[in-house]
Amino acid sequence: MLEALNQPHSRSVPGNKPLLALELDCCVVPLRNNLKLIQTTDFFYPLIDDPYTMGRITCCNVLSDLYAMGVVDCDNLLLLLGVPREMTQDEREITTRLLMEGFKDCALEAGTYIRGGQTVLSPWLMVGGVATSVCSDLEYIMPDQAAVGDVLVLTKPLGTQVAVSVYYWMLEDSPSWSGNLCNVITSDEVKSLFHSATLSMTHLNRSAARLMHKHRAHGCTDVTGFGLLGHANNLVQVQANNHLAFSIHTLPCFEGSSLISKTLNDRLKLLQGLSPETSGGLLIVLPRESAQSFCEELTAETGCPSWIIGDVVKAGSKSAFLVDQVEIVDVQHSQIVPPKYSDSQ
Amino acid sequence: MLEALNQPHSRSVPGNKPLLALELDCCVVPLRNNLKLIQTTDFFYPLIDDPYTMGRITCCNVLSDLYAMGVVDCDNLLLLLGVPREMTQDEREITTRLLMEGFKDCALEAGTYIRGGQTVLSPWLMVGGVATSVCSDLEYIMPDQAAVGDVLVLTKPLGTQVAVSVYYWMLEDSPSWSGNLCNVITSDEVKSLFHSATLSMTHLNRSAARLMHKHRAHGCTDVTGFGLLGHANNLVQVQANNHLAFSIHTLPCFEGSSLISKTLNDRLKLLQGLSPETSGGLLIVLPRESAQSFCEELTAETGCPSWIIGDVVKAGSKSAFLVDQVEIVDVQHSQIVPPKYSDSQ
Repeated sequence: MLEALNQPHSRSVPGNKPLLALELDCCVVPLRNNLKLIQTTDFFYPLIDDPYTMGRITCCNVLSDLYAMGVVDCDNLLLLLGVPREMTQDEREITTRLLMEGFKDCALEAGTYIRGGQTVLSPWLMVGGVATSVCSDLEYIMPDQAAVGDVLVLTKPLGTQVAVSVYYWMLEDSPSWSGNLCNVITSDEVKSLFHSATLSMTHLNRSAARLMHKHRAHGCTDVTGFGLLGHANNLVQVQANNHLAFSIHTLPCFEGSSLISKTLNDRLKLLQGLSPETSGGLLIVLPRESAQSFCEELTAETGCPSWIIGDVVKAGSKSAFLVDQVEIVDVQHSQIVPPKYSDSQ
Repeated sequence: MLEALNQPHSRSVPGNKPLLALELDCCVVPLRNNLKLIQTTDFFYPLIDDPYTMGRITCCNVLSDLYAMGVVDCDNLLLLLGVPREMTQDEREITTRLLMEGFKDCALEAGTYIRGGQTVLSPWLMVGGVATSVCSDLEYIMPDQAAVGDVLVLTKPLGTQVAVSVYYWMLEDSPSWSGNLCNVITSDEVKSLFHSATLSMTHLNRSAARLMHKHRAHGCTDVTGFGLLGHANNLVQVQANNHLAFSIHTLPCFEGSSLISKTLNDRLKLLQGLSPETSGGLLIVLPRESAQSFCEELTAETGCPSWIIGDVVKAGSKSAFLVDQVEIVDVQHSQIVPPKYSDSQ
């Protein structure tokens, strides 16, 4: 279920002529009239069993790469689906319809449309998409301008895949659950954790993208398959300044997920900052003086908290690391509210 | 292997706001400055075992939807790959590298670049991509202008999937081969058929797209998963004129493929015009007076023949059909030459 081999979306194929912005969340291709084509694709395997919600999450995850580049408006979405051969015709139709509906509703809430796609029969259910925007240089933010003294902001809690894994372990009464976790966390707590993580995954990162312009962000990436530290490291590597590092002092985690991780000796790597996320938050480099306002305005728009989690520090070579005794913040379930789409547009 | 459930690439998701050009090979999205975003995606399963050549074929197949819209220049390609879990690490690396190289070399020959993509682990090897162009209204051709009296031109022979199926039946000595076909066609003939089909699939439809402008094409689609007649039917349905039909009098087939089809009682549907094709030719609606010149100029550029295969006729309702006693043209293997990329750019 969680076997997506996520790769940076815009790695160039060796030997191809790099034009702009390789190793970023999107490719940036120069066009006529000084416009840029900004584009990303993502596909992966569903991690929850509710097709409608999974459609929403897929759309958020696909769009998130545009938002990480500060692109607020997506011009077009394509939908990519693999529908299991082993489903009956009815199962296929219902699952596909619900996935499409979730994807479409989320697209509409993001102010864009699905105008193409491809469906194949496949051994596994697969979901994904392509997001494209054509925009001027003022409408996106190159992520390579971090400066010593900046801070790092994270816009969603960590632990989506921990939450989902433990929830399904519980439902299946797997050994990891029955032999261990069931002694430290209740079923209701796991259900609440799953609910919070699912809600969080259905939040678009669009408001954050918009506020990045206002608060003059110096760089950004979204947190997905490589986990917070993996993506922080990718982001630090593209920086123009070679003498800085990202020092992360805080890991905001869904309530319950850090307890689970400690019980499992951090086998899912959440406390090392390496647990893969799906439709995670943006990790944004902001000038220190504007970070607090950014977080407050984002909370006002989305209803959910965000956090200053680190600093850009002087260093001999580019790296991202957790400080000793990193602080774990348990993000209460009550803080994660359903998306307020009407406010975010 | 041949189980791709190909769907029209630009079907809109129900309920989404249609803007332009639904049911076409690409979506056409209005942008600022009177530009249009023209975009297509395709992914499917490899049909031959040579990863480098399969990479080329994939690229041709993905780009073909742009060419069918008369778009000559692709601004960006994304590569989509599913790499089998069951391959060893070495097998995965070699296969992926060769697929990428084939895709990339073909992209360069088409004058474009791969600047992004996504790879997942998957039970099956999957290949595909996304092709995007941003262009003015003069640079694409809406496919809905067929007029009674026009003719239909096909730019590649039919029978790619027949060729591939029979070749692998022969290699595997399957019952279809050993019980039947081996009595009517030699191994060498099957190998030549496979070779011709493979060469044909590595031809870009780009020269045809360019010549469509010069010869004022009234519409076009590419021939892939629905077979010639399926795509002809899709194309006739989008015509602005409701009182015409596409009458097809000729089926140009790779030498040997019609004999095979007759022997199999046309179980692969080639002689019904319904055999799925991969990286097939363009089916183009042209004014009668320019069709012959179109074919001659295309042959001069690509080295391969094309054919006038039908007429646009007056009719009560829109349909596409084969005439009684449709003529089967056996396209000799000597007529299918390797792509002449330097000439086609």
